[in-house]
Amino acid sequence: MIISDKIPVAVLGATGAVGQRFVQLLAQHPWFEIVALAASKRSAGKCYAEASQWVIPGDPPPDLGDMVVRNLDPDIPAKIIFSALPSDVARDIEPAFAKAGYAVCSNAAAYRYEPDVPLIIPELNAEHTAMIPTQQQNRNWPGFIVTSPNCTTTGITMALKPLHDVFNIQQLVVTTMQAISGAGYPGVASLDILDNVIPYIKGEEEKIEQETRQLLGRITNGKREDAKIVISAHANRVPVIDGHTVTMSVKFTHKPSVEEAISVLRDYKGLPVIQELPTAPTHPILVRTEADRPQPRRDRDAQEGMAVTVGRIRECPLLDLRMVSVVHNTLRGAASGAILNAELLTAKGLINTS
Amino acid sequence: MIISDKIPVAVLGATGAVGQRFVQLLAQHPWFEIVALAASKRSAGKCYAEASQWVIPGDPPPDLGDMVVRNLDPDIPAKIIFSALPSDVARDIEPAFAKAGYAVCSNAAAYRYEPDVPLIIPELNAEHTAMIPTQQQNRNWPGFIVTSPNCTTTGITMALKPLHDVFNIQQLVVTTMQAISGAGYPGVASLDILDNVIPYIKGEEEKIEQETRQLLGRITNGKREDAKIVISAHANRVPVIDGHTVTMSVKFTHKPSVEEAISVLRDYKGLPVIQELPTAPTHPILVRTEADRPQPRRDRDAQEGMAVTVGRIRECPLLDLRMVSVVHNTLRGAASGAILNAELLTAKGLINTS
Amino acid sequence: MIISDKIPVAVLGATGAVGQRFVQLLAQHPWFEIVALAASKRSAGKCYAEASQWVIPGDPPPDLGDMVVRNLDPDIPAKIIFSALPSDVARDIEPAFAKAGYAVCSNAAAYRYEPDVPLIIPELNAEHTAMIPTQQQNRNWPGFIVTSPNCTTTGITMALKPLHDVFNIQQLVVTTMQAISGAGYPGVASLDILDNVIPYIKGEEEKIEQETRQLLGRITNGKREDAKIVISAHANRVPVIDGHTVTMSVKFTHKPSVEEAISVLRDYKGLPVIQELPTAPTHPILVRTEADRPQPRRDRDAQEGMAVTVGRIRECPLLDLRMVSVVHNTLRGAASGAILNAELLTAKGLINTS
Amino acid sequence: MIISDKIPVAVLGATGAVGQRFVQLLAQHPWFEIVALAASKRSAGKCYAEASQWVIPGDPPPDLGDMVVRNLDPDIPAKIIFSALPSDVARDIEPAFAKAGYAVCSNAAAYRYEPDVPLIIPELNAEHTAMIPTQQQNRNWPGFIVTSPNCTTTGITMALKPLHDVFNIQQLVVTTMQAISGAGYPGVASLDILDNVIPYIKGEEEKIEQETRQLLGRITNGKREDAKIVISAHANRVPVIDGHTVTMSVKFTHKPSVEEAISVLRDYKGLPVIQELPTAPTHPILVRTEADRPQPRRDRDAQEGMAVTVGRIRECPLLDLRMVSVVHNTLRGAASGAILNAELLTAKGLINTS
Repeated sequence: MIISDKIPVAVLGATGAVGQRFVQLLAQHPWFEIVALAASKRSAGKCYAEASQWVIPGDPPPDLGDMVVRNLDPDIPAKIIFSALPSDVARDIEPAFAKAGYAVCSNAAAYRYEPDVPLIIPELNAEHTAMIPTQQQNRNWPGFIVTSPNCTTTGITMALKPLHDVFNIQQLVVTTMQAISGAGYPGVASLDILDNVIPYIKGEEEKIEQETRQLLGRITNGKREDAKIVISAHANRVPVIDGHTVTMSVKFTHKPSVEEAISVLRDYKGLPVIQELPTAPTHPILVRTEADRPQPRRDRDAQEGMAVTVGRIRECPLLDLRMVSVVHNTLRGAASGAILNAELLTAKGLINTS
Repeated sequence: MIISDKIPVAVLGATGAVGQRFVQLLAQHPWFEIVALAASKRSAGKCYAEASQWVIPGDPPPDLGDMVVRNLDPDIPAKIIFSALPSDVARDIEPAFAKAGYAVCSNAAAYRYEPDVPLIIPELNAEHTAMIPTQQQNRNWPGFIVTSPNCTTTGITMALKPLHDVFNIQQLVVTTMQAISGAGYPGVASLDILDNVIPYIKGEEEKIEQETRQLLGRITNGKREDAKIVISAHANRVPVIDGHTVTMSVKFTHKPSVEEAISVLRDYKGLPVIQELPTAPTHPILVRTEADRPQPRRDRDAQEGMAVTVGRIRECPLLDLRMVSVVHNTLRGAASGAILNAELLTAKGLINTS
Repeated sequence: MIISDKIPVAVLGATGAVGQRFVQLLAQHPWFEIVALAASKRSAGKCYAEASQWVIPGDPPPDLGDMVVRNLDPDIPAKIIFSALPSDVARDIEPAFAKAGYAVCSNAAAYRYEPDVPLIIPELNAEHTAMIPTQQQNRNWPGFIVTSPNCTTTGITMALKPLHDVFNIQQLVVTTMQAISGAGYPGVASLDILDNVIPYIKGEEEKIEQETRQLLGRITNGKREDAKIVISAHANRVPVIDGHTVTMSVKFTHKPSVEEAISVLRDYKGLPVIQELPTAPTHPILVRTEADRPQPRRDRDAQEGMAVTVGRIRECPLLDLRMVSVVHNTLRGAASGAILNAELLTAKGLINTS
Repeated sequence: MIISDKIPVAVLGATGAVGQRFVQLLAQHPWFEIVALAASKRSAGKCYAEASQWVIPGDPPPDLGDMVVRNLDPDIPAKIIFSALPSDVARDIEPAFAKAGYAVCSNAAAYRYEPDVPLIIPELNAEHTAMIPTQQQNRNWPGFIVTSPNCTTTGITMALKPLHDVFNIQQLVVTTMQAISGAGYPGVASLDILDNVIPYIKGEEEKIEQETRQLLGRITNGKREDAKIVISAHANRVPVIDGHTVTMSVKFTHKPSVEEAISVLRDYKGLPVIQELPTAPTHPILVRTEADRPQPRRDRDAQEGMAVTVGRIRECPLLDLRMVSVVHNTLRGAASGAILNAELLTAKGLINTS
């Protein structure tokens, strides 16, 4: 695939922790070029270096430090809009951009649950882009919104999709141990989490239960039918910087053996078109067979943080199988995931590059 | 209850982390008096201060520092033997003491799973002491072994027993987030657990599944019939010093409402005889209704570390109810639990104090 | 000492982390009784349970949960006012209370550096209360302000005062490793401090350098002459919950041997009148001789958190001696320290209890 | 520089944590090729994958997993021997290899303090290789030993050498906050370091004081004259995974201004020959001017972990300047440092590649 000139893109909410990840990743992207950074009134008008207090690893891209942060008006000379906005702000801003013709790739939850807005992880459900024309027709928008899932759901569904395709999942119990970076910056107070576990993350269990059904759903005539899986989620915050760990018990229509499950996961590749996207990992799912893996610190960075690592696949005394997965929540589970979605849209010709 | 003179007791494995807790707690016990500390050959013959590198909070009892550590022979002038031995050592040593007529209160796993050895948490199943005569008869021992459960199982069963009594538990999925102190000292390497989760603790899931059924089992004619509960456990280590956190999904024969479950847990007291034991907490089960409790750092020390705190009681989309419990693993879940067992035996007249 | 009726006291800034410590400690104080809790407009009018999100260990005192939080006006029916206000608020509010006749015991920095405001640690410089009449005369106040030092300075000066008395300190290099609780709540973001050190705490080094000279200063005719010590401080934040650790290199006019220094520290008791204060520790300074002590987690709670633990006393290749001290920053170093000051004032008859 | 064929190298102590770093880094080295891995009798004879429990980030090099681990006899077909042995083992083994003609690049402390063994950081004192002929003559060895310093000393001396060259350092007080990985694996028990600081590391203060003088010393006629600097070190362990942080107070013969110090550090490059070594960073010293940097988590990975970051350069009330440095202790401070030394030896023609 050859793309002659880079596609101009912008980041909304560029000053926050997820916004910083977008900026860092897009600064060296082979297809996309940042032409604008936008944020709330408090930051607009300042140069980016001044407006953003850098909290993620590495340094800010040196050539973007002087870029003046714009406000959130839909008059940006870009083709793709990456949204790292808080959901309450995204609710008003993202439709304004879609209405103005932009392709909005959102990391926010505001529109994730709309029946005509696709929720996409390219390796799992690239065909959900078929919902875009329906969305445009429903809402009379020349542009559109595509969303990426909650970081935790990403780790769950990437581990389950290959198994669902073959054995059909019916029931699922998940318990999460989520990293502090999932709460943004400043996010979790150190006095709350050092030497501690917080067994509650507002809204998280509902997101996991709903989004998993959407991501594993099927598309017919541009409409999504959610997967019929009964899901019980327990969400917890633990003192880990990056990387969400999830334990799962799963019941299938057709119970696989442990060996079959490992084999299906190891063989999963996704569509060829996906494998050629610049941000796509060579192996989206890694299976480890050591007794004590995956672990967030040791597995989160696999494949540039784009692979989900699965392990401890074993019999479940109550349902069928138990397993553990780890996902890098701020890479695969946030900025990189949305960028991969934009790459998918580009490869499918859904971005108006004229 | 008045006990004229203190009962002489000894601690086996006194130099390890759990052994140190025993020593610390027994040093100021109203009923018991330490007359001997015993340990492996490496420590025997040294004075206790020299043999034990103190790793738990607080200081070693000053008046025991000069006590010479004995070896593990059953010739100690004590009535009750507290065993903090590693399980492989306990397997040989504990029977030798029972055979020699001692009452052995063990924190080790070696004899927990024998059909004629009681596994006891006094507030839950004090009546399991009825297994002692059977054990003595089976094995032709003048003494006996009573065991206390794995620390994690303690947190699970204390939260579940009141509900099981009323609503009958059928199915259970638990995920644990366990403190590092559960692995003893030196135990977990800091390079393994800082900024990390280890989703595996050797043998722990099997212990949880088996011991829960034993603790919730019934006694008939001196024999225990295990509870028929299907249990799936996921055990994890997290960077917390003390306090095991457990998430649970539970299915009952008679589904309670959330309010009924809270009410049953709040009203649970255990038998009056138990409430008068010196180590027994006023309230063995505390229910918190804040959205984000219990938490290990903030709830582990409730009631001197002897109460289990339960919270987040809510509907489960798959089974009936979800909840979270926290237990102090090295107090209620280890040394204090075994001491409470010894108090129970004393109160029931099962210790030969002549 | 017999005090017939409890002295009515109030806490300003009662809803913050230090305010909560004041409330917790005063709720069971033998001499003082909380009659009012006051805070900023945001909290005033609400009941205390609602206004304060409890962040410190333990639970809020049950009988104070319903007390309505007052605003910060000096019309409170109390004799002693404990101030846990932020310094910028304290600057206006504390003088208003002193002007209205109250004895203000402040934990804030606002008036610590005034030449007529005593900065007191009772065991070290109880005689600095002689500055109070001067302050009242200078400012024409019927009441007065007495301050307690920065938490870190407390750990430094308690370790040094006995040595200064005998050997006269001339030079001091200190490096601090400070707990997160020193920054209040929410305070330090977990993303900033997990697996990290922050080698900077705003204003801390200047506070340490200045306050140490004040605390070790002498009083003549109601005026304080600061100690002439050259001090270089390096302040750092580390991932520890409670307990500030300080390394020190010290040069004296009369160089003591290591043994002499240990002996002087071990023998230090403070005045008899201080030892009878209810919050005073039996031993304000503990010396440990193990190679690796003091440590914040293992030593912070010594003597109910009121003792400073000193260790690793050894030769310094550049100055005279090196040593390490640990202080519990939110107990001795904050709320308990100010309460001890109020006890001193009471014992000295400086509180108008009529 | 063109090197036609890779130089065969071996790693002694290949199974430990530092040994694993050597293996990981050398597996993709442009000049060197691992031809042997050696370890103690316990590991010898096993394949490397089996003998080494991988504890560092990333995975073991796949093509080395099957290499059979050799014992520590000096009969290995390599030209350069990297030693990651414990010092007590190194004391016997390293001379055996030097005597057999090998160039030994050691990370162990065993021979660091010998007057004829060079201690080298290429950017600082590449000219100390002039000690090698002296060593060979003294000991009648065809090979030789070159050592790299203690990880903490590396962070100190890289920050100080440029200043020493221009302003001549006379006095130094350092306090370290060292990462747990500096203690190897399993190393520091998590029960010792979570929520804690250990203000003691055995032998570390002496190493810092001695090695700093050696590294900053001068060579005349193949002999090293140590720098005459009076140094006082305070060594502490903190809960950080990688990256040692050091605070320093420094006195110079010619006191620089803060600006001069910054300028000298920023301009420091080392010799051109060093800059061309494959492992050498573009900028060995980075100066940051933010108030709160450097921080270990945010700065340790700068320049692939090979740069030392310096910050908070400011006046010292007692000596002349204060500052903070951060070094990646297991990269620059251990394996990478020794590899860089081997590259220096190669570039200088001191490796017999025939």
